[in-house]
Amino acid sequence: MKLQVAMDVLTTEAALTLAGQVAEYVDIIELGTPLVKHEGLSAVRAIKDAHPDKLVFADLKTMDAGELEADIAFSAGADLVSILGAAGDSTIIGAIKAAKAHNKGIVVDLIGVADKVTRAKEVTAFGATFVEMHAGLDEQAEPGFTFQTLLNDGETAKVPFSVAGGINASTIGAVQRAGATVAVAGSSIYSAADPAAAAAALRAAIV
Amino acid sequence: MKLQVAMDVLTTEAALTLAGQVAEYVDIIELGTPLVKHEGLSAVRAIKDAHPDKLVFADLKTMDAGELEADIAFSAGADLVSILGAAGDSTIIGAIKAAKAHNKGIVVDLIGVADKVTRAKEVTAFGATFVEMHAGLDEQAEPGFTFQTLLNDGETAKVPFSVAGGINASTIGAVQRAGATVAVAGSSIYSAADPAAAAAALRAAIV
Repeated sequence: MKLQVAMDVLTTEAALTLAGQVAEYVDIIELGTPLVKHEGLSAVRAIKDAHPDKLVFADLKTMDAGELEADIAFSAGADLVSILGAAGDSTIIGAIKAAKAHNKGIVVDLIGVADKVTRAKEVTAFGATFVEMHAGLDEQAEPGFTFQTLLNDGETAKVPFSVAGGINASTIGAVQRAGATVAVAGSSIYSAADPAAAAAALRAAIV
Repeated sequence: MKLQVAMDVLTTEAALTLAGQVAEYVDIIELGTPLVKHEGLSAVRAIKDAHPDKLVFADLKTMDAGELEADIAFSAGADLVSILGAAGDSTIIGAIKAAKAHNKGIVVDLIGVADKVTRAKEVTAFGATFVEMHAGLDEQAEPGFTFQTLLNDGETAKVPFSVAGGINASTIGAVQRAGATVAVAGSSIYSAADPAAAAAALRAAIV
């Protein structure tokens, strides 16, 4: 199982600092959606230039113009780009076309999709590299949110999946046991007093 | 009915050129999602500084972290920010909270929402300024797309709405008759040989 850090910071400078602290412990470095919107795709280029040996994930959460948005993100140095599962099929298929042209990958983020299992199978058939079983920052704060539902959906779908939404040192074991391809950790790394130590602990928890 | 130009260009320079050509004919200047992702929110600031008398719409199409994304866009000079209707209620409510703090507005983009009428009523009750009855660029290219469905949904919902997806000089009359608050024109302006003349013709078609 790979470890992905989600950098939900707002500036390229803060992202470069965080990536520098944690890169040695992670496989995939994600630029969060607010960071991309705040700074533009130059932030993707800056991170890829600083960490050419890591997979760089641009969390575009694209809802329309799939081929165009994916193309400009890959051109900026992204290895993986996210498209929303809530988007229309043609948007996802367009993004996958751009990924093939760049020899890169599309991740379909299932945030907000009611039937994540069915959609996961559909978009994997289209050619998505993996799907993201994802509860958003807002959804995690809602009453009744349970992390276990994401794991159950991943196990049931039987397609390559990542899990995002509350992963920390005490939950990452369950993510691996559920068969995830990638575990995505955000605030448990970037909000830690020592992000490097937090990332190292997560890495050590992967067996 | 107000006229909004959707600037689906990729660079701040191209956006400033286009806005300069068409501003006198439009009420709202929209920075499209690919432009925001490509350039970052500095593009919003550049357009607002160049056109302080116009409403500037940042088409963020936010799916998560609603309050944060709306806040940074308003801080960059946006008057209106779009949030996806496909997002969770807490994301939309968070964005509306940010809008109230800045004395600005949230537009809920109903792209990809199956039951646009029900969702339009829900998010208007939350405090959205208006909803956008929207067929995306990808959806417009699909077989079977009909513009009329968007108008019917707007008329049925009986809440303030804009219409986006294929508006040109021959369709804008029907948009006004359907009772839209805002007509959004994109490619019929920015792909025209003479964008200023195209915008002027749309303006003249509003009675």
